[in-house]
Amino acid sequence: MSEITRRILSWYSSDNPGTLTNIARIVNHGRLGGTGRFVILPVDQGFEHGPARSFAPNPAGYDPRYHFELALAAGCNAYAAPLGFLEAGAAEFAGEIPLILKLNNSDSLYGGTDPAPAVTASVDDALRLGCSAIGFTIYPASALRNQMYEQLRELTHEAKRKGLAVVVWSYPRGSGISKDGETAIDVIAYAAQIAAQLGAHFIKVKPPTAHIEQAAAKKVYDKEKIPVDSLADRVRHVVQSAFGGRRIVIFSGGEAKDEEAIYNEIRGIRDGGGFGSIIGRNSFQRPKDVAVKFLQNVMDIYAGKVK
Amino acid sequence: MSEITRRILSWYSSDNPGTLTNIARIVNHGRLGGTGRFVILPVDQGFEHGPARSFAPNPAGYDPRYHFELALAAGCNAYAAPLGFLEAGAAEFAGEIPLILKLNNSDSLYGGTDPAPAVTASVDDALRLGCSAIGFTIYPASALRNQMYEQLRELTHEAKRKGLAVVVWSYPRGSGISKDGETAIDVIAYAAQIAAQLGAHFIKVKPPTAHIEQAAAKKVYDKEKIPVDSLADRVRHVVQSAFGGRRIVIFSGGEAKDEEAIYNEIRGIRDGGGFGSIIGRNSFQRPKDVAVKFLQNVMDIYAGKVK
Amino acid sequence: MSEITRRILSWYSSDNPGTLTNIARIVNHGRLGGTGRFVILPVDQGFEHGPARSFAPNPAGYDPRYHFELALAAGCNAYAAPLGFLEAGAAEFAGEIPLILKLNNSDSLYGGTDPAPAVTASVDDALRLGCSAIGFTIYPASALRNQMYEQLRELTHEAKRKGLAVVVWSYPRGSGISKDGETAIDVIAYAAQIAAQLGAHFIKVKPPTAHIEQAAAKKVYDKEKIPVDSLADRVRHVVQSAFGGRRIVIFSGGEAKDEEAIYNEIRGIRDGGGFGSIIGRNSFQRPKDVAVKFLQNVMDIYAGKVK
Amino acid sequence: MSEITRRILSWYSSDNPGTLTNIARIVNHGRLGGTGRFVILPVDQGFEHGPARSFAPNPAGYDPRYHFELALAAGCNAYAAPLGFLEAGAAEFAGEIPLILKLNNSDSLYGGTDPAPAVTASVDDALRLGCSAIGFTIYPASALRNQMYEQLRELTHEAKRKGLAVVVWSYPRGSGISKDGETAIDVIAYAAQIAAQLGAHFIKVKPPTAHIEQAAAKKVYDKEKIPVDSLADRVRHVVQSAFGGRRIVIFSGGEAKDEEAIYNEIRGIRDGGGFGSIIGRNSFQRPKDVAVKFLQNVMDIYAGKVK
Amino acid sequence: MSEITRRILSWYSSDNPGTLTNIARIVNHGRLGGTGRFVILPVDQGFEHGPARSFAPNPAGYDPRYHFELALAAGCNAYAAPLGFLEAGAAEFAGEIPLILKLNNSDSLYGGTDPAPAVTASVDDALRLGCSAIGFTIYPASALRNQMYEQLRELTHEAKRKGLAVVVWSYPRGSGISKDGETAIDVIAYAAQIAAQLGAHFIKVKPPTAHIEQAAAKKVYDKEKIPVDSLADRVRHVVQSAFGGRRIVIFSGGEAKDEEAIYNEIRGIRDGGGFGSIIGRNSFQRPKDVAVKFLQNVMDIYAGKVK
Repeated sequence: MSEITRRILSWYSSDNPGTLTNIARIVNHGRLGGTGRFVILPVDQGFEHGPARSFAPNPAGYDPRYHFELALAAGCNAYAAPLGFLEAGAAEFAGEIPLILKLNNSDSLYGGTDPAPAVTASVDDALRLGCSAIGFTIYPASALRNQMYEQLRELTHEAKRKGLAVVVWSYPRGSGISKDGETAIDVIAYAAQIAAQLGAHFIKVKPPTAHIEQAAAKKVYDKEKIPVDSLADRVRHVVQSAFGGRRIVIFSGGEAKDEEAIYNEIRGIRDGGGFGSIIGRNSFQRPKDVAVKFLQNVMDIYAGKVK
Repeated sequence: MSEITRRILSWYSSDNPGTLTNIARIVNHGRLGGTGRFVILPVDQGFEHGPARSFAPNPAGYDPRYHFELALAAGCNAYAAPLGFLEAGAAEFAGEIPLILKLNNSDSLYGGTDPAPAVTASVDDALRLGCSAIGFTIYPASALRNQMYEQLRELTHEAKRKGLAVVVWSYPRGSGISKDGETAIDVIAYAAQIAAQLGAHFIKVKPPTAHIEQAAAKKVYDKEKIPVDSLADRVRHVVQSAFGGRRIVIFSGGEAKDEEAIYNEIRGIRDGGGFGSIIGRNSFQRPKDVAVKFLQNVMDIYAGKVK
Repeated sequence: MSEITRRILSWYSSDNPGTLTNIARIVNHGRLGGTGRFVILPVDQGFEHGPARSFAPNPAGYDPRYHFELALAAGCNAYAAPLGFLEAGAAEFAGEIPLILKLNNSDSLYGGTDPAPAVTASVDDALRLGCSAIGFTIYPASALRNQMYEQLRELTHEAKRKGLAVVVWSYPRGSGISKDGETAIDVIAYAAQIAAQLGAHFIKVKPPTAHIEQAAAKKVYDKEKIPVDSLADRVRHVVQSAFGGRRIVIFSGGEAKDEEAIYNEIRGIRDGGGFGSIIGRNSFQRPKDVAVKFLQNVMDIYAGKVK
Repeated sequence: MSEITRRILSWYSSDNPGTLTNIARIVNHGRLGGTGRFVILPVDQGFEHGPARSFAPNPAGYDPRYHFELALAAGCNAYAAPLGFLEAGAAEFAGEIPLILKLNNSDSLYGGTDPAPAVTASVDDALRLGCSAIGFTIYPASALRNQMYEQLRELTHEAKRKGLAVVVWSYPRGSGISKDGETAIDVIAYAAQIAAQLGAHFIKVKPPTAHIEQAAAKKVYDKEKIPVDSLADRVRHVVQSAFGGRRIVIFSGGEAKDEEAIYNEIRGIRDGGGFGSIIGRNSFQRPKDVAVKFLQNVMDIYAGKVK
Repeated sequence: MSEITRRILSWYSSDNPGTLTNIARIVNHGRLGGTGRFVILPVDQGFEHGPARSFAPNPAGYDPRYHFELALAAGCNAYAAPLGFLEAGAAEFAGEIPLILKLNNSDSLYGGTDPAPAVTASVDDALRLGCSAIGFTIYPASALRNQMYEQLRELTHEAKRKGLAVVVWSYPRGSGISKDGETAIDVIAYAAQIAAQLGAHFIKVKPPTAHIEQAAAKKVYDKEKIPVDSLADRVRHVVQSAFGGRRIVIFSGGEAKDEEAIYNEIRGIRDGGGFGSIIGRNSFQRPKDVAVKFLQNVMDIYAGKVK
């Protein structure tokens, strides 16, 4: 075990050896294995946005096996997807890459102000499919947040008892905040804290903006002069907000955009001490060879091989 | 086991031998056995529309035994019905044809914009009646969709653990979409994707129209020039949307209509790579000999014996 | 076992010997035992309408033992009541008459458009009290119908597993239909179908009128020329709608009225092939000797001993 | 066992010996032991009305041990209180007096038209504290009545299985009736019937007035000339409404008032065949010696020692 | 065991030795060990108010280990926090200080008139983390209070069965009372009573003001001349309201303020017979050495070492 892996595991000293083993599997896998940095491939867009919006740009992605292959070829730390997508490849790719089973999902055929995903799979599904972790999305600021927190509590308790790791997507959204507030620095830092308090091992948030949403928070940011000007500053604050850096915080990429913009964002995350990225559409919507090269460039930035 | 059966089972490699056995039973039964094509008889209209609307045109159908006999005489792959109808014949016809127990149903004595069926039977009912599969209806686009998805998740998990197959009727309906949107190509493709992600082995959708419901989807269909002009084109897209053709997608017939119109629709489904049809009113509302002939004509189209 | 009993049991061939035994107990008990006709005494009006409205006309009925005695003296097939009433006599009259425990009830101290009874007893209560069956009321057309169907599904599954029979009171009522619609022929036939599909062995409905409630049904009744003019016609259609006569359908009496009117109604039910009557207020609100004579007259009509 | 005790137990012949034993404990305990009359001390006002309103008039009552001592000193049949109050004395006074654990309670910090108490303790709490019975409040006429009935059903079933007795406070209240209706004779009689049908062994209601609330009931009271003029008449009707006198019906005292008024009320209850009283504020808000004397006077009226 | 400890344990004589052991651990730990006085460190503000508002004034507090160290250095009786914060230190500080796992929490990203926290951890979590007690917040006066009371009932029952102590934060809040009412003397006394009746061992309330919120209470306070002028008077009344002083009642500190104001408040609590304080922001937002000195000053006041 590398020194870095050992240090990361020390943050989770309440967990049983089974869970530590699965955390270690994700830490140690792929091109960034053992560096304490992470690039994870998530593919839940088929459920969240629909098949054509997700896969028509690169139709190879309609086939669930494609994403296992892409994550393997690029050397990602793990691959995360909903039940159906994992069922369709878990046996064929058994043991080749750590899997994260997304346990809740929303589709876009029905809207509404205060989102709440459906729970679409179980901890026992994750076990029977050989996964290393469960994934779960919470929407702080939704009127239905408590329902999500309580579902997560039950699933987290069961996952830890059964030796799995827990990855939480913490995306503030709903009638409690404004649209801009969804990525405000105070809100993103709060979202990371909530996920950590709920027992997450891995926390996924969006890259924060310099906007401050809540008046009561604004007073403190001003008084304490918390730096929020650069992305690196903001990432540093978010990582600090997740138990002083003792929880793995990973940032999402969002909508497809050009490569250079992404590389710059990755540099900001890296320089602020962020632990890595979870990159979906920007990878699987590109042709496979382009996507592999792109993901490896991102890994090289995190690894410090390039600026 | 035929090569085709073996290939179909390979798509479900996460399932246990019990479930694979029941999938194989449906694949291999009847006149289309082993061809990878399917014609299934569903009779839930007594519950959904009422007895007179369903059975008065051919009163033999009031008797639950009639539908077992019809499905057997025509050589269907399976017969699907609610609890009461299966209880009334499961012993007499034990082992003669694969049975699918519909686990949820709606009646027409109460309406409402956002439908949600009642759960009317259990996985253990399916086991005690000797069924090969459970059937379940979801209504994506209903405000109550999450309730249905979560019921399905629990039932699917239990069914797979107990060696049964899972058939999902995925019918978008409710305040999230327009009336035309219920059969729009983007919506039907999305409905197939959702059912697949939720873990269905067999997916039943309606034949799609060329209408595109969602603005965000329209942009992609236009940009990627996804062909939707012919029924065959649309069926091909729907089948691709269900894990690149690695899930069995079957199309429903809908209201009673004339035979030639149906045969044309069947040809479109066949030419687009659809796996078959589930035909209720168009079969059991005709006299038995006419219905048997009609169903066998449909099978012959799927089998390629006629154009 | 009489030929008729054997034939009736053949309709329930999915049930275990325990449940068949309890169905047989009800079929074979009393003056109509073995004839395939039924007269059952139900006394839930104390709960449903209050004690004075129910028992003041014949105060002997305040005492729960009275109704056991009445049902025994008249030779009914079974006696049905809520938990408290059965608890108060089940030991004293142990084994003397088949008992049906009503598992849900409504009181009249609170109204509302869309009724839903409270579940007031359990299958295990029925077992500990020595009952042959559970009884359950559903209100199709109520906004809360799904809740009732799902309660019934759980109780039915448990009852059948534990060897009890299931009696369903199917009373359409609520915002889905008009007041007249509650006894419309299409609605009553539909109510019988729903109860049968939900797994009922015995189905209790109200005598239908010639009114047709639903436009979609009206078209079919007109086109198929379904006869609904006489009560016998309508009863025949309702019995046919309950699995072509392969489920026991019994008709309720309703409000107290004069004897001759009732006898005429009974003749209509008999001539239409109805299986019998469930008569509450018209029996227990009369003095005991009058009630016994009255009930036996009803039985004689069913037995064909009188016209 | 006294003849009276034996007769009372015969009313509950469906219950197991454990439950009969606990009913007998309450029947046989205290100064009225074995007479078939009851005086019970209830102290849930700390929860229901707040501590100062309940105990400031006699501050000794803040201490939970006080009420055990008061009930013992006066010779009550039983003492009823919520979880905390019983936990605070159950060991110290183990076996000295039958205890009734109130399983649900409401506080006055939040109002609302349709009351529903919180369930605040369990049957297993009653067992671990050595209680003889559970107590439960229902509010017929509340929009939430079904929730209470169903909670009671589960608790009653569990209590009877585990050998405990069941005491039901049946207090009509809520949007289904008027304020006057809460103590109307038809409503109180109905409330007693509902509690009995739900399986209560002991039923607590308020003394009824001569008001008749429901039009449908009024017709019957008039037609059948049910006497409701004197309290004794009304109590007789309520007792009859609880299974013809075969359930123990006890009357509450209500707000603090002067002693002579209470004694007159007790005489009415006694003369109408009521089984006794449950007296809270009128006893524990008086100094202890006064309260003991007062309670014993009440007992003497019931015992027929004084007019 | 000190005499004081023995006396305190005597108040909880219904509890099993496991629970008594854990109560004793909290009573006996730290600088106030065995005195019957308590100072507890709670740190749930990261969840309740967000990370920056909580920890930016003293950034050492972002690290969960900091609070274990602070509680140990100051000699607190116990340390209370949500799941994530305890998981992050429970192994490293195993056995060094009694831990209280807060089982429910609210965040500030969504508001609303009637609060209800999410349940965020379980009794089994408390056991696996080596805690001595569970902590739970109820909001009497919220429309959702019953939901909280019922959650608490289940958790309390489980905790007591498994040998843990129960700490209840009883904070009246919601549409049932005014803003001033939240700290009114009648309301705080009532809140303490409710927590005691629900089975709490330790009760945490806010220091009450002289305001009286409820008209029905006001009459009694006036009539009985209950003294509420000084904080000591009010604390005395609150302690009396919690079972005549036989439940441990602790007072919270609230917002950060200057030290002398706090010391005065502590003196009032002490002089009124309050059992101690639970002090969060006023301790962990100060530099560590200042906070330790401050907390020890508070302890000295309680211990009577200083006025």
